[in-house]
Amino acid sequence: MLEPERILRLEADRVVFLDQRRLPDEEVELECRSAVEVAGAIRDLAVRGAPAIGIAAAYGYALAAAHGEDLEEAEALLRSSRPTAVNLGWALDRMRADPSPEQARRIHEEEVERCRRMAEHAADLLAPGTRALTHCNTGALATGGRGTALGALRTAWERGLLRHVLVDETRPLLQGSRLTAWELDAEGIPFTVIADSAAAQAMAAGEVDCVLTGADRIAANGDTANKIGTYALAILAAHHEIPFYVVAPSSTIDPATATGAGIPIEERSPSELTARFSAHNPAFDVTPAWLISAIVTEDGVHRPPYSDLAQNRP
Amino acid sequence: MLEPERILRLEADRVVFLDQRRLPDEEVELECRSAVEVAGAIRDLAVRGAPAIGIAAAYGYALAAAHGEDLEEAEALLRSSRPTAVNLGWALDRMRADPSPEQARRIHEEEVERCRRMAEHAADLLAPGTRALTHCNTGALATGGRGTALGALRTAWERGLLRHVLVDETRPLLQGSRLTAWELDAEGIPFTVIADSAAAQAMAAGEVDCVLTGADRIAANGDTANKIGTYALAILAAHHEIPFYVVAPSSTIDPATATGAGIPIEERSPSELTARFSAHNPAFDVTPAWLISAIVTEDGVHRPPYSDLAQNRP
Repeated sequence: MLEPERILRLEADRVVFLDQRRLPDEEVELECRSAVEVAGAIRDLAVRGAPAIGIAAAYGYALAAAHGEDLEEAEALLRSSRPTAVNLGWALDRMRADPSPEQARRIHEEEVERCRRMAEHAADLLAPGTRALTHCNTGALATGGRGTALGALRTAWERGLLRHVLVDETRPLLQGSRLTAWELDAEGIPFTVIADSAAAQAMAAGEVDCVLTGADRIAANGDTANKIGTYALAILAAHHEIPFYVVAPSSTIDPATATGAGIPIEERSPSELTARFSAHNPAFDVTPAWLISAIVTEDGVHRPPYSDLAQNRP
Repeated sequence: MLEPERILRLEADRVVFLDQRRLPDEEVELECRSAVEVAGAIRDLAVRGAPAIGIAAAYGYALAAAHGEDLEEAEALLRSSRPTAVNLGWALDRMRADPSPEQARRIHEEEVERCRRMAEHAADLLAPGTRALTHCNTGALATGGRGTALGALRTAWERGLLRHVLVDETRPLLQGSRLTAWELDAEGIPFTVIADSAAAQAMAAGEVDCVLTGADRIAANGDTANKIGTYALAILAAHHEIPFYVVAPSSTIDPATATGAGIPIEERSPSELTARFSAHNPAFDVTPAWLISAIVTEDGVHRPPYSDLAQNRP
């Protein structure tokens, strides 16, 4: 597994990221020396994944505090760098109470520990010989720890439960075929990349035992915003009677948002799809709670109707 | 609409194709002077779409006959150039009985007329103000005529019934964002390209009134092989209670294949998805008949259980 400090770390005068835009072709670090630069790295996807951008925002805020930057401005910049993940706001709320580097590093360490715990809970759901399908990247790169859905697959692999992973390529930015494939390849876990549109056929052919995804924000009722395409997978899994699990830290749960209808969905540039013609490029979609077999956090396995979801939030 | 002879035509000593691999960036013609070269153009997707490759094979066979090539060899080459579309074999059966240029051109003219008729039948199913979703390219480029699903949308537009088209980009070869977008743009029909994985969210948002696709092969029971991703769209449409229509010429129906299980699915190169990691790249999937609201051919609108499907095959 990638060491947490290889993904992102706070140094004395900078935040350093493994630049995820350049993977898998190049392993290059990006250095940010102000909250403005960290907000830019989040917005431009040098660092992405709900837990990882929460940590990045905490590091950016600690940097701003250490440098004597205007903290209100730094917070506003970081908070608005991407709209959908709630971890951003959650980490900044904690940093406002204590803007020290120690607090920021503690947020990172806690996320690593949450990943470890949720992976144990989620792996408990998998039978020996599991062939799992996953979407986007939810591994070390996305969390600064073991990962959410991909962390669970790592733990299942270590326990000898996992046979194979089908990886959605995840258009338009290919987080699956670039980042998840790169992580699985590094760990020697058997996997195959497929087009997002090929998942249904694999399910019909009996090649998928369960679907695992992460989450960018989970509403109080369990409705889950995640990478565009997640909602389709949940419908396809239900149609084929395949369990659909969301694996996410409790920092992703937003008790202030009652249902998925209240989650803002980021609209990204049409140019990610086509340079020439009119396009619509939502980065996320919302999966209704009733299509989700279980939501696994570090606290354990939550089942519909998810009434206990917000209780143990840190 | 593109003139049929711009898509493909037989000249005295060559078959000329509008090279679909270069669109939308360049409008370049490809000239083939033997059955070998025509088979190569089909295999390499310079010409694609079930009806269009049937016509291409007919032209290739007529060329081989005119040049005194070994006709058995020419037929075997053309027949095996792609495995899923049944139109290829159907056109070659007709050419074997009469290998003349006139026969080949007649096959093209009949396909143009079939397109016109099926578009009228399919447009009859659409209400005023329709917002349709389509997948892959099923227009002039795919048929050498008006198109199948896209031909129906053209006719609906001419009748004032069509408000907007959502175009799946159609990974991995982007026939939607390259070819369908190019055709719709040329005709001034309003459209938006989306990632394949974004179709479900658009349906949930109430932005899709119906889904129209073409077909590469329709089994006797109505099970339909079409571009990978079609099966997912049919499930998603059923989940959202949106009609799902297949529009295809009767030359696409294969009465010799009882169900979808008997349709060979072309496996294309993993490199179309990722150059670096292991991938699985089926070009088609099979949609079971019960998920299809209607199959529209030039003969009219067929409804489940599709017992009359193979009766009027030309």
